[in-house]
This record gives sequence, structure tokens and C-alpha cells, in this order.
Amino acid sequence: MKITRAVITAAARNQRHLPLQTLVDTDGTRKSVLRIIVGEARRAGVDDICVVVCPGDEDAFSAAAGDQGLHFVAQEEPLGYGHAIYCAREFVGQEPFLHMVGDHIYVSAGGSGCVQQVVAAAEMHDCSISAVQATRENHLHLFGTVGGQRVRGTHDLYAIDRVVEKPTPTEAEQVLMVPGIRSGYYLCFLGTHVLSHVVMELLEEEIQQRGRADLSPILNRLAARERYLALEAHGQRYPVDVRYGLFTAQLALALSGQDRDEVLTLLCDLLAHRQMTNTLNP
Amino acid sequence: MKITRAVITAAARNQRHLPLQTLVDTDGTRKSVLRIIVGEARRAGVDDICVVVCPGDEDAFSAAAGDQGLHFVAQEEPLGYGHAIYCAREFVGQEPFLHMVGDHIYVSAGGSGCVQQVVAAAEMHDCSISAVQATRENHLHLFGTVGGQRVRGTHDLYAIDRVVEKPTPTEAEQVLMVPGIRSGYYLCFLGTHVLSHVVMELLEEEIQQRGRADLSPILNRLAARERYLALEAHGQRYPVDVRYGLFTAQLALALSGQDRDEVLTLLCDLLAHRQMTNTLNP
Repeated sequence: MKITRAVITAAARNQRHLPLQTLVDTDGTRKSVLRIIVGEARRAGVDDICVVVCPGDEDAFSAAAGDQGLHFVAQEEPLGYGHAIYCAREFVGQEPFLHMVGDHIYVSAGGSGCVQQVVAAAEMHDCSISAVQATRENHLHLFGTVGGQRVRGTHDLYAIDRVVEKPTPTEAEQVLMVPGIRSGYYLCFLGTHVLSHVVMELLEEEIQQRGRADLSPILNRLAARERYLALEAHGQRYPVDVRYGLFTAQLALALSGQDRDEVLTLLCDLLAHRQMTNTLNP
Repeated sequence: MKITRAVITAAARNQRHLPLQTLVDTDGTRKSVLRIIVGEARRAGVDDICVVVCPGDEDAFSAAAGDQGLHFVAQEEPLGYGHAIYCAREFVGQEPFLHMVGDHIYVSAGGSGCVQQVVAAAEMHDCSISAVQATRENHLHLFGTVGGQRVRGTHDLYAIDRVVEKPTPTEAEQVLMVPGIRSGYYLCFLGTHVLSHVVMELLEEEIQQRGRADLSPILNRLAARERYLALEAHGQRYPVDVRYGLFTAQLALALSGQDRDEVLTLLCDLLAHRQMTNTLNP
């Protein structure tokens, strides 16, 4: 299969300013977070992009993305993360689609980006696939987490049999241990997925029954219904919605980019200077 | 005299997103740049605050400031930095006022902030006063620069006799050397001033004659007309409009704030990790 459409969710009411924040990208150019995320999708060959936003944010987001070709759809009511994706159902139609969250930056250590890796794997294996990362159990409260088995003959693919949103360490130990993954670590979502259109059907059922929808329970049902893989992506996720998230993402981009030496020099200067100032004015 | 009003300029067309950027302040709270700047004015006892913005930015800025008490005035046409200040003439009336730029963050090493220092000095000396900092000549192309003489009996006050915007090092050496300041250094504006209402009269003359106004030529005329001082402020300015400006400001805030240890740990972790990643994937 070929992935041509992407759905970026950026409609969380308390995080609507995040895609408008600016960072210096690895190429040394200042860009909004949204523009960096859109660039990752395009780099993966996915050109038809829909951003799900709060009503009224379309113009600001369009300006921040600096990208004339984006579609926008408003999530009129805050009925969950799954519901935000469902708002793009007409845009998606009957095709599989790339889904990315609007508040994560990915930095890979060279070669292809995380999003490229997931799209390439989905096109090769012709099924839904989520990017995951082995994550220490003390961070499980932040992420959707998958259980399953490594796909024979591969070193980074897993057949998912279960998805749990923000499990406790005890719950994870009982049902989410994956053979071959280091003890105390679990496979957590990176916020990038290729999903079959069946996800839209499952979301519709959920919304009709419960009036709202989150994503992880739907992906748990997807795993029971069709082949659904996890790819351990090479690269790091940097959530920008946490305290110092933008700062950390900026440093990670700079250390992997053309301004590495400039930023390391800047760091040393500032550390030395603040130390001096603190000594002078204790 | 008592300063009760502040004018914050944030109307530059290419920088209108800057006051909306978020940073973690020294108290560990995430705030917009605008909210941090407004907080500095309030900390200096100046509660009546007017923000000069691009037309249409009022709502976004009001939300970002999280401050119900702000006044907004739009600069309808981009007729210069001085003209932006002049847009607040009705708000200011016949009183002296605090002026701050909307794209600088100040970090002081403890004690009172830069803005507090300037307001206190203006109230004590009863005249216009600009915060300055001894700045190396290779940075003169970025700042308004003053010449003058140290006020007898003080260590940080100067009577300004001349103001030049972004002088060349040659020009600075000829007319802006200040006795007592280290060779190769000049007194450059920090972006914070207390100005008498005469500035509004001078701006009006300039706009009537030339159709636009910058600030430094006006302050040069102010120096010829009435007592006008410079205060060497204790603290650092961090312009957020330059590449890595937000990053540098964030690091400076963190190193001076309650999260110092957390951020130093985060820095070390990331530097170590990126180094490892780069070694694994050269």
C-alpha cells in the first residue's frame, strides 16, 4: 500500500499554543513546531495533510506552518483524542493514513527520520503500524504501551496483541512484557502511527456508544481484528508539552544539526558566565 | 516622581509571534514571554500597562499574558519603533512612563530586577533614565549606544550627552567613549527606559516632519534638552528575537531559578545521550 494522507492532531484545548512555538531546526532555520512536524510528514512522502485544530485556530496555524497546502478541520467539542482523529474521517476516506501528534518533535541520529521509518515499514508490510520505543517503567504513566511478540526474522518489529493507555508498572508487568525487551522496559508509543481505515469504523462505533473516544482502547480493538505491528524506531521523541520540553527539543535538534558547535559554545559561555555572576552576587 | 504607567512595544511585523512564545520562568511556571515582561513591570510597581501591537493581535496577546488588566493599542502602520511608542500617547498623557521592548527577557543575579532598578533610579533622580550595559564593540551593530560622563559620587549612573543607534566601532571610538568604562566597551541600551512626556512631544515633531520615527534620534534630542541619565543595570538582557535567543533566555532563567539542578541534570543527560547516539550511528 502507499500512504498519501496524514492527520496531525493539535486540538487539545490547553495545548493549542504549542504548535505555534518556534524552534531552530537541524538546518539552522527558525520554524514553528507545526512546520517541523509537517516537514517530517512530507519528508516521508506524505503530501496531503490535514490538521485537526480547535475552532478558530485555522488562520494562526496556517500562518505558523508557512504551508499553503494544508487542510484544516475543527474539533468542535473536546470529546477525546480518538474523536479528534475521527474529525478527519472525510479527509481520510477509505485509505490508510499517517497519524502524528502535534506536540512531539522527533530527532533521529542521522539517516531516515522516525516518521519515514514508520511509513516505509507500513508500505512494506501492508498493515497498520505504530512507532514505539523501549521506555523505562517509571515513564509508563505518560504513554500508550503495547504488548506482543517480536516478528520472527526481524529485530525491530512486533506483532501487537494488546494496547493499554498509561498502564501502572504492575499492570505492565502482568500483560505487557515483550520477550526480548530488557527487564523493566516496555514498548511505548512515540505518537506516530500508520492506521488502516478500520480505525475510523471502530472510532465511529465508540463515539456512537459512549459519546467520546480515546485512541488506545481503539487500537487495542484493532489488534484483535487485524494484523497490527509495532516498529522500534531509531531516533528520539521529545514531547514539547512538558516543562522544559521545548528547551530539551531545541537542544536535541541543535546537537544533531549544523549548529552543534555554535550551541555547545553558547552553552559553555552561559554556564561559565552564570557561575561567575552567582559567585559575585551570592 | 512616581512611575505608574508602562508602554510595551510588540508591533514589529516580523516579530509578532515572539511575545506568544513560552518559557519556564525562574519560579518554575510556564509563561508567555509577554507575561514575563508584564510581570517585570508589575514587580517594579508599575501597574497600568499598555501593549502596542499589530492590528488584530489584541486577543491572542491578551490570552497569552493571562492578565485582565492590560490596555492594548494597535500600530496601524509600521512607521518605526518611535512611532510605536507614540501610538500610546493618549495612554501616557503628561506623565513620565516606563518603556520596555516586547522581545527582551531580563535575568538578574538576585536582588531586584533590571526594570525595578531603573524605575527606582528614575523616581529617586526625577528625570528620564535608560538602562544600559557595558557591551563589547563587536556587538554595537545591535544596539542604541550612549555617550556621556559618570555622575560624580556614583558608580553606575551616567549623564547622557549623546545617543547613536547601532554605531560603527569607529564612530563609537570618536564620540561615545565614556571615561571609566573599559577600553573597547560602550554603554548600550538594554531596552528598558523611564521617559519623560517630552519624548512624546519630540516624537510628534519627528512624525509630522518625516512621517515616521525611530527612538534613538529622539533620545539624542532629549539629551540636549533635559537631564537624561543612564543606569548600568545589574543583570543580563536576553533578546529572544535572535536565533537561539529563546533557548539562551530559557537556560539563563533556569540557571537563576528554582529548577537550576533539574536543568543542569537534563543538560548532562542529553549531552551524554546525544554523544552516545552519535557514536553508535556515526
